[in-house]
Order: sequence, then C-alpha cells, then structure tokens
Amino acid sequence: MSATSEDVARAAGVSTATVSRALRGVDGVNAATRERVLTAARELGYVASPAASRLAGGRTGTVAVVVPYITRWFFAEVISGAEQVLRDQGMDLLLYNLGHVEGRERYFSGEALRNRADAVLVLCLPLSDAELEALGGASIPVALVGADIEHCPSVRIDDVAGARTAVRHLVNLGHERIALISGERSEPMGFTTPIDRRRGYRETLEEAGLPADPGLEVAGDFTVEGGANAMAELLARRDPPTAVFAESDEMAFGALRTLRNAGLSAPRDISLIGFDNHALADLMDLTTIAQPVREQGARAAQLLLDVLDGHGGERRITMPTRLVVRGTTGPADRAGRQRNGGSPQELRGADGTTRS
Amino acid sequence: MSATSEDVARAAGVSTATVSRALRGVDGVNAATRERVLTAARELGYVASPAASRLAGGRTGTVAVVVPYITRWFFAEVISGAEQVLRDQGMDLLLYNLGHVEGRERYFSGEALRNRADAVLVLCLPLSDAELEALGGASIPVALVGADIEHCPSVRIDDVAGARTAVRHLVNLGHERIALISGERSEPMGFTTPIDRRRGYRETLEEAGLPADPGLEVAGDFTVEGGANAMAELLARRDPPTAVFAESDEMAFGALRTLRNAGLSAPRDISLIGFDNHALADLMDLTTIAQPVREQGARAAQLLLDVLDGHGGERRITMPTRLVVRGTTGPADRAGRQRNGGSPQELRGADGTTRS
Repeated sequence: MSATSEDVARAAGVSTATVSRALRGVDGVNAATRERVLTAARELGYVASPAASRLAGGRTGTVAVVVPYITRWFFAEVISGAEQVLRDQGMDLLLYNLGHVEGRERYFSGEALRNRADAVLVLCLPLSDAELEALGGASIPVALVGADIEHCPSVRIDDVAGARTAVRHLVNLGHERIALISGERSEPMGFTTPIDRRRGYRETLEEAGLPADPGLEVAGDFTVEGGANAMAELLARRDPPTAVFAESDEMAFGALRTLRNAGLSAPRDISLIGFDNHALADLMDLTTIAQPVREQGARAAQLLLDVLDGHGGERRITMPTRLVVRGTTGPADRAGRQRNGGSPQELRGADGTTRS
Repeated sequence: MSATSEDVARAAGVSTATVSRALRGVDGVNAATRERVLTAARELGYVASPAASRLAGGRTGTVAVVVPYITRWFFAEVISGAEQVLRDQGMDLLLYNLGHVEGRERYFSGEALRNRADAVLVLCLPLSDAELEALGGASIPVALVGADIEHCPSVRIDDVAGARTAVRHLVNLGHERIALISGERSEPMGFTTPIDRRRGYRETLEEAGLPADPGLEVAGDFTVEGGANAMAELLARRDPPTAVFAESDEMAFGALRTLRNAGLSAPRDISLIGFDNHALADLMDLTTIAQPVREQGARAAQLLLDVLDGHGGERRITMPTRLVVRGTTGPADRAGRQRNGGSPQELRGADGTTRS
C-alpha cells in the first residue's frame, strides 16, 4: 500500500495541510519544514496527487469566495461546504462578502483579487464580462454556485424545475389563487435565482389554465422580514390568495409569522410552500423544495481544484431538488370554505372572469 | 472642510478601498494606480487616518478570522459585523472555519497564519499559549469575541449574568424544577460560554433555594438537533421539569420541535427560554436573552485595527444583554396543573424531600 499524506505528516511532525503546501511549493512554509516534509515524502515513497504537483510554483494557496450575503442561511452553508474541501487540500479561503450593490461595485472596481488568490468561487452572482476581467480574466479560474456564465464551471440546481414542482403541488391540492413571494424588490444584484423561480411559477399557472395576476406577485427580499411584509401585503388584498409559494424558506418563515400575528394559520387559512429545506423548515413544519446546499459548495470547490490541476474543462453540474411535504400545505377547499364562505370574489380571476 | 477618502477615490477614479490600500502601501495595488491615488490625495490635501499611515510598509492588508462553526447563526452574524468594518478599511478577511477539534489541531500545528495576515480575530475559542504562539506570538495582534485571554483585546457579553437573568425569570414565574439544555456533550472546543451560562443557572437555583438536580442538566451541542434530543431526554424522565433554560436559541428551537411532536406546547406544558435573540426567535415567539451579535464582531474588528494603528493597549469590552419576554414562558402552576394533576412526584425535589 502506498503512503498517504497522513503518513508523511506524521513522519515530518506537521499537519497534512502543511504537507500539501510544502509539496506544492506555496508560500508560508519555512525552509526547514519544507525540507523535512520532502525528506519524509521521499523516504515513504509518497506520490503527491496530480493536483499537488500541478500547483507547485509559488501560487498563493488561496481560493477567494465572493458571497453577496454571508448571513443568509444558504450562503453560510455553501461556504461551509466549499471550505471543507479547500481545507482538506491545504488551501485557504479568502472571503469577500459584498453585502450590497455598492460593495459589489467597489469590489470589482480595479484590482479585485490583487493577486491574492489562485481561483475564485462566486456565489449566485452571474458576473459581467467586466467583472470577470477584474478578477483576472482568463488567467484566474472562476467557478460559480447558483448561477452560470459561459466558459465557467458551475454547480447549481434547476430553479425553474424546482419552482414548477412547488406550484404544481399547490395546483394539485386544488388551489387556484396562488401567490408568489419572490426575492426581488431591493435586490438589484442580478441574481438569476428569483427570475428562474418566478418563471417556473408563471409557467405552471399557465399550464394549469390559471390566470396570471400580477397583484399576487410580491417581493420579499429573501429575508425573514421581507417575507413577513410580503405576506401582510397579500392578506391586505380584497381577494387574498388561498396558497403562497415563497422562493426561500426564510421568507416563508416570515410569512408564517405574519399569519400567526393575524390569527391565521397554514394550511387552515392559507397553504404555504417554501424553497431550500432550511435547517429549521422541519421545526416549522414547512412544506418546501429541498436542495443540497453544502454539497453545491463542496462540488464547486472541487471543480475549481480540478481546473487548477489541469483536469478542468468546462463542467456544469445540476443537482437535484425534491418536494418535501410537511404540514403547511393542504387542500384548497379548506381555505376557501373557512375564510370566504363561497363569496364570489374568491372565484373571480384577476381578469374579472368567473372561474370554476 | 478637509477632503475625505471618498473625494480622493472619486478624483483618482478608484474605490475607497483602493485608496486605503494605496496610501497604506500594501501589496496588490499596481504602481500606476498608486501614483494616481497619491497625486489625488496630495492635490486634495487629504490626510490619511493614523491607521492608514501606521499600516504603511507592505503588510498583508488582511485580517484572519478563526471561527469554530461558520454555519451557526451566531458566528455568521459576528463575521458579517467584523467583515463590514474591515472592508471599510480596505482590509481583506481570511476565513478559517475549524469545524471540529481535529481541524483546530491541524490549524494550530505549525505555521497557522503563514505570514498571511496582519492580525487575527478569534471567535469563542480561548486560545492556549501554544496556539497563540502558533499565530505568531506577540508579533501578531489577536482579538477575541465571546472569550477572553490575558493581554488580548476582547468583546463579549457577561454570560453568567445573562444566564442568571434567564433562570431568574423562570424562578419568578414560580418554577421549581428548572432544567438546563447546555452546549456541551460533543463540544470539546473548550468554549467558556457553556461553562459560564451553566454557572449562572446553578447560582440562581441555589440563591432561590432550589435543589440542584444533575439529571436536569442535559447537553444539546448548540444545534437544533441537539436541542431536540435534549428535550426528548428531559420529557422521558419520571419527573420532567416545568421549565427549561436552553443556552442558545437554536437549541431552544429544537426543543420546541420535540414538544410539538409530543403533542405538548410552551408555556402550557413546559416554559422555555433561550439565549441569543436569533433572527427567528420572534417568529417562534421564543422568550430569550438578547445579545448584540453583529456589533460584537464590528467592535472587535475595530479593536484590532486600533492595535495595528498603535492606539491599542488591552481593552476588554462587555456588551449588554437583556431579557426579551415572549410567548414560551408562563407561570409554573399552569404546567403543574395540566400535566401532573398535583401528583406527588411533581412536588418532590431531587433529594427526595418534598417541596412546596
């Protein structure tokens, strides 16, 4: 059996990360330590991975991760997944949390990376050509999670398909007035996620022969607060929906709060489905579309390492989503009966035509 | 009025971060850009802050943030707060997510920082002397959030006092069998947080003349899952508590899930108080101890910048906590009546003596 990097680490009295760095020749390992590692590797007949040898030559040993909002559950999970893969390869993670549009503009104005990273992992931001150029153009590998652009490896889910599944679930339960709590409003980052999820929502309504009602599409900013406000907006309508698809679980949590504060509950008064399968969705008994989150970060980090290793080539990975039915969705008639007593506006579409 | 860095940025056609970096002389700003910034600063009579001038001389322009678990709400929030302050100063954030004890050992074995950061912000890990040495000893400023060690600036709350307030709230409601869902079990990182919060719990029980019952102290690992399991353990007791103090809101959320799955609710069957004022605590109607989280990260980052700037000196900041009463805590008699019908074991202390 051939020696592993753990064997070399033990023999040299250092961590496996240091072994990896020493063998790759990246900065920050002092000469004596490097010599000890090289000697141990030689004595044990350890053959470094292709990645390790490819990377030799004074690179930074760092991957930059550009994230719009680190405090949102999805992003922290993706970073965690990526970080673990990078750490196992002895790579550091340089974090850029943009926070808002101005932060994005500042970041990409000029020397974004300042030669401080070998590669960049970008979360959910479809970069412009100018932004790609600011990262170093073709000389710096870029991978994306939750978005894709030409010639970059990416890992994402099919947002359109996920949204279609969510709305189809509500249609199958007999709902005809189905609202959307979408991500946008003060969300000018250019995320494609809300665009795709809205497309899935609209397509499914159309296929079901349900009229589109722009008044049933409200924005929730992908935050708990935004979701709470969006649900309040929907409840204030003369003819509120009987079901709501929220484009993220955090917005759905906010929507649940608004329902509770109004003395309403799901699915008795309104059915509610989210998106993500957030760690607390189970607790909230929230029906949702599950996506693998940490795994997307891990896969994307691996794609970047592959590119650095020369194995690259463009690879676009689409990971699966699935419907998780819990307690916040139920048949339409319950809601219709409870709250509207068959009043005619409940049966009227947005175009004024009577339905059913 | 004197010129600001924004004025210089506008005049030079670069971001304020680039202005900051150019004036400090850190790596990664190309010569032409630096010249443009220096010229603009000269023409506008811009005087860089003392921090900017102190930092001149080819430093890395980077602060390392060492975090045990990035996916926990508290840590992501603290990082976000620190990141914003650092970014405004043109500093990068190098993220080290340790994840587990082995990750910690690897990180601190040898050249932790590899000369890649000017300063280190450590979250909730009271470092050993050896670990401090691995970071660079006295040559690298270290600040802590949520912990303190000698000679390091730190920002934290008073965990003992916060826990005392929580338990005092339950005592004031008439509860006598008060359980603790603590952080430890597979938590060998040496966090002082759970130790301090448990001390607050025990001291308050003692002052109230309530007997200590080790069987009422169960561990929840600071996770939703752990909190759910801990509550299940408490419910399985022959004489379950009438009130529970969970050392974090995420554990309290898990505890609420277990209650719901058992057909129970708070405060009808058991009163429950958490710790943190998590973004979802309001939605869960969870009574809790609020602490300023993002602010701790921001203050600690500023302390580090002050040290780099030479203003330093040891500073230990303790930020305030406060009780937020919501719907999960209520008077003891309700719980007693509902679930035990006055059965004698409810009135018996852990030592077998009859109370009441």
